[in-house]
Amino acid sequence: MYLPESVIICEQGARDGIQTVPEFIPTAKKIELINALSETGAPFIEVASFVNPRVIPQLRDGREVLAGIVKRPGVKYIGVVPNAEGARRAAEAGCDEIGIFFSASDSHNRHNVNMSTEDSIRGLAGVMDISRDAGIPVYAGIATCFGCPYEGDVPPKRVAWAIESVVKMGAYRVVLGDTTGMANPRQVEELMSFLLQRFPDTPINIHIHDNRGMGLACILAALQVGVTRFDSSVGGLGGSPTPGAMGNVCSEDLVHMLHELGVETGMDLDKLIACARIAGELTGRSTHSHVLKAGKRSDLVRSC
Amino acid sequence: MYLPESVIICEQGARDGIQTVPEFIPTAKKIELINALSETGAPFIEVASFVNPRVIPQLRDGREVLAGIVKRPGVKYIGVVPNAEGARRAAEAGCDEIGIFFSASDSHNRHNVNMSTEDSIRGLAGVMDISRDAGIPVYAGIATCFGCPYEGDVPPKRVAWAIESVVKMGAYRVVLGDTTGMANPRQVEELMSFLLQRFPDTPINIHIHDNRGMGLACILAALQVGVTRFDSSVGGLGGSPTPGAMGNVCSEDLVHMLHELGVETGMDLDKLIACARIAGELTGRSTHSHVLKAGKRSDLVRSC
Repeated sequence: MYLPESVIICEQGARDGIQTVPEFIPTAKKIELINALSETGAPFIEVASFVNPRVIPQLRDGREVLAGIVKRPGVKYIGVVPNAEGARRAAEAGCDEIGIFFSASDSHNRHNVNMSTEDSIRGLAGVMDISRDAGIPVYAGIATCFGCPYEGDVPPKRVAWAIESVVKMGAYRVVLGDTTGMANPRQVEELMSFLLQRFPDTPINIHIHDNRGMGLACILAALQVGVTRFDSSVGGLGGSPTPGAMGNVCSEDLVHMLHELGVETGMDLDKLIACARIAGELTGRSTHSHVLKAGKRSDLVRSC
Repeated sequence: MYLPESVIICEQGARDGIQTVPEFIPTAKKIELINALSETGAPFIEVASFVNPRVIPQLRDGREVLAGIVKRPGVKYIGVVPNAEGARRAAEAGCDEIGIFFSASDSHNRHNVNMSTEDSIRGLAGVMDISRDAGIPVYAGIATCFGCPYEGDVPPKRVAWAIESVVKMGAYRVVLGDTTGMANPRQVEELMSFLLQRFPDTPINIHIHDNRGMGLACILAALQVGVTRFDSSVGGLGGSPTPGAMGNVCSEDLVHMLHELGVETGMDLDKLIACARIAGELTGRSTHSHVLKAGKRSDLVRSC
């Protein structure tokens, strides 16, 4: 089985995860989680959204979160923005990287922001200007790359067109979203083989959801064709607000699998499991984590 | 991605699943679940254990269950037995196939039945005699093939020795158990490549547990090297009584993945999801099913 030697994890729990928790989580609790995540060795941590606080009130304290955390050297702390105004606030707050979002499929994009994908991409120019001036790199998150709830399959060429468009505008990497958990391993293999060949110089993350239990199987298929960048969320927190959605792939389950496979992550799994415990406590929900409940394979052998 | 055209599912929910539910489930409820499972197209259904009713009181009604179900032609209804006395009862009750169990690793086998693996295998002669006389085929379930909680890794040659031994004694197929959820995809690929090559004429099932969330990823790895027989449990019911165990791979999540991959199962996924609902109701527990909560991918697209 071909597998890469090492991969890069981008931790989503403190942003995409908390975003879907109905209650407002106090700023100090968010800071506690992010500081704990910083100690795990995760090289990228999404920490805030600079959107309209009326749209996502759970993340209205992005500035205070950024001001309160202890930044660990080498870790990129990422803020997500919808527009130039958000980019300005994210830059002022001290984000190391900015994320912007749109959907590969027109109908999903129209459903979310009432404009075509093309218009959304064109509208990113303002974000790019501000980021360039502030010297902050931008990633583009592209939703519905593995399927759209309105259109079904999304053609690989459409995804390629979206990537090409945002890279031309200045995005240094892209994140392909499995927004409603529609990816399957064969499709992931086919799409990612095509895209890695077509964009050898663009870092491509995949952001897989576990709605239908295939999350880690999809990541296994991606690893086998050379994908080395994965989004995941501590405790499996968050995910799209689609009915029945089980949320993001769980970080500690993913890192546990990678370590069992002999793939390096640079992360401390015990510290990550401790973060999953914190995440469960602060959201007041049982997490979708397996490893938090069952423990690591190596712990089982040692304990018997 | 190489994948087989079709696979065979052996449904575990009504036996391995119910076995770990602390309360006794009324016989009529068990019959209702088995009858519903018979309509899904599952070709093998484990329905009872003929063990000491003091050891597993939950399954003390094996005879009544077999007498009460509507047997669907073509479906094999399986009873699990620990010894010759159990085999006699299973044959009398009308089982179409008998399952026997032992562990590949000596220390796990000693922990369970206080004898070596070799002695356990030798002790199967009585079961084989009764089954042969009754004309009932026997499968051998071999536990800890993917790791032992006491010994850690179990050498592939040890597993091969166990398979060879029971096939010589008359088992027509074997089921390799991931008893405490220790399998990982790379290991599954390596072990199964080795075994499929070594035993081209012996049907080999794998019985993967999902304790650490890697169940479907392990099955994906197995499919890629040509494994075509999988055990799974409706609703993800059951599994080993190991602390933290999340139970068997969930049948409806597995069948959903297989169908998305284009691998035939001969099963009706909607009927299987209905069984998962029954399983949840009769055990009074929320299941580990993803697809029961999120629905099929195809339903999502149709509903939007």
